[in-house]
Amino acid sequence: MGSLGTRPVVGTMIGDPAGIGPQVAVKALASGQVHEVSVPVLVGSSAAVERAIDMTGVKARVRAMKSLETPSDDPGVIDVIDTGALPAGVLPLGEDTEAAGHASAQWLDELDALARDGSFAATIMGPISTGSLKMAGKLDKVISPTPGESYLVLLTGPLRVAHLTDHMSLRQVIDVISADLVAKAIGQVNDAMRSWGIAKPRIAVAGLNPHAMGDEERLAIAPGVEGAKAMGIAVEGPVAPDSVFRQCIEGRYDMVLAMFHDQGHIAVKTWGFSGNCVIMMGPPYLHMSVAHGTAYDIVGSGIADAAMMLSAMRTCGRLASGQGFELQGEAK
Amino acid sequence: MGSLGTRPVVGTMIGDPAGIGPQVAVKALASGQVHEVSVPVLVGSSAAVERAIDMTGVKARVRAMKSLETPSDDPGVIDVIDTGALPAGVLPLGEDTEAAGHASAQWLDELDALARDGSFAATIMGPISTGSLKMAGKLDKVISPTPGESYLVLLTGPLRVAHLTDHMSLRQVIDVISADLVAKAIGQVNDAMRSWGIAKPRIAVAGLNPHAMGDEERLAIAPGVEGAKAMGIAVEGPVAPDSVFRQCIEGRYDMVLAMFHDQGHIAVKTWGFSGNCVIMMGPPYLHMSVAHGTAYDIVGSGIADAAMMLSAMRTCGRLASGQGFELQGEAK
Repeated sequence: MGSLGTRPVVGTMIGDPAGIGPQVAVKALASGQVHEVSVPVLVGSSAAVERAIDMTGVKARVRAMKSLETPSDDPGVIDVIDTGALPAGVLPLGEDTEAAGHASAQWLDELDALARDGSFAATIMGPISTGSLKMAGKLDKVISPTPGESYLVLLTGPLRVAHLTDHMSLRQVIDVISADLVAKAIGQVNDAMRSWGIAKPRIAVAGLNPHAMGDEERLAIAPGVEGAKAMGIAVEGPVAPDSVFRQCIEGRYDMVLAMFHDQGHIAVKTWGFSGNCVIMMGPPYLHMSVAHGTAYDIVGSGIADAAMMLSAMRTCGRLASGQGFELQGEAK
Repeated sequence: MGSLGTRPVVGTMIGDPAGIGPQVAVKALASGQVHEVSVPVLVGSSAAVERAIDMTGVKARVRAMKSLETPSDDPGVIDVIDTGALPAGVLPLGEDTEAAGHASAQWLDELDALARDGSFAATIMGPISTGSLKMAGKLDKVISPTPGESYLVLLTGPLRVAHLTDHMSLRQVIDVISADLVAKAIGQVNDAMRSWGIAKPRIAVAGLNPHAMGDEERLAIAPGVEGAKAMGIAVEGPVAPDSVFRQCIEGRYDMVLAMFHDQGHIAVKTWGFSGNCVIMMGPPYLHMSVAHGTAYDIVGSGIADAAMMLSAMRTCGRLASGQGFELQGEAK
């Protein structure tokens, strides 16, 4: 399957059934805005989705499927692939449970399998609970960033940042940076952005040290950038870390490759959170997640804001069909 | 002297005579807004200031002094202490010269001496040229940040950041951070802010590693923060580096102590440049500088924007008289 007409079929795992994931998913889907750019299908517990519809009061009904059938493609009908991972009658709310952890892990496996066999053109992971997954011993089901393989990418308007490294001490970051790793990451970022519809991505690579002047720039980052340039990639760097993010906001680059977690996260979080999207670059398909957690504290009220889920679903639809970013190079 | 009534006497070194320093100084002074909060006196070349008045067309005349006399305290009269450091007839424009470097060095010495003897309550360094100072072999006259002694502080609206280290490689930063150094810096930041009129400064100390969870946090930063807390200082930390700057913008803290140059600079520059001020904390008096350079490319046109000099002069007047920041804890 993969698409209906020009619109890609996007699978969204509902997140932990006890969190706000099902609620923000049904709110986003019922808006009709997701269907403009994609054909959405949920993966998870149909009972959790039905409860979310009740709690939020959105006008939609659930269509439960045991496996992927032709999607309804109707904002009033929410398709849920439910293989029974969460036992009948078990429906936790606002707390971590081993059952939810096991179910979440199985849904992530199903999401991955349907993307790998081409049924889904792209996938979104709703807000999972690391607590539930830990209780089930399944935390490894969540794809984590690994230098040379997979990278966390944050998008917030024109500010877009891929991270070479993630949860790694600064001392390790300095030791791990190499020309090969930098060149490889630039290549992966370039390939991914081309597949999203950016014909000639302009990539900036941040330096590591003040003003990008240090041993690591000379010995690893600059040679890595030159290697990527030699492959025909439109890449610049190492650029002074304190200037490169502002330059991206102003439209000079389409993406910054940051050397470490906080280099990029300080820029994104200080500039502003609005419309944040998260991409896990690495799997052989577009894989996104939502930039918030399970919010157990407000899950009982049904008031959860669906803006970030809507942003993720719309961005996922656009990128999976090669339409590029909604906002390119415009300052806030 | 030090003050006239409640307003502090603030000495401003004009910067390199070949740059836009004299122009932005006369524009700021002629606005009258500087006199609302301070009694300004320039230190430099009276000929350069006269030329700046001609080039910018501001309505003011120069009163040249060989040493500090009672200030005119009139926006129409610009007092300049000119000891003849720049030889008569020598007045470079738009280029580095050894003569300007020697003169700049002497003006910085004079500025420091007048602050140390209490004649100036505070000082501002205009945009100097490191090129001219290098030609004169006097670059050491510019106070540079040194961990344990002096710290670069950036202010932009409610976002205020002191930097524990400055132009130092990340590898060196990791090695140099210690509990003593952190505690000492917190104490200096606290003392300075109290002298500026913030009765109980709320200080946040950024961590070094992602989510502030690493060896350096446990072994150095946390013990340093605890040591400062034991002295009665309202300090928190280590705080996750990717959250702490946004929290400062939102008014939770009055100042963030960043561990390294780019940690703070990425936040300040990505968030926005408007009204940036620079404080060099360390000398036994308030010492500020201007957040731009000599701008040789536009010095001939007289169009230089005086906003940052005005911001520096007004902030300097307020802080030197203990009135605190103009903007406290308001988001942009």
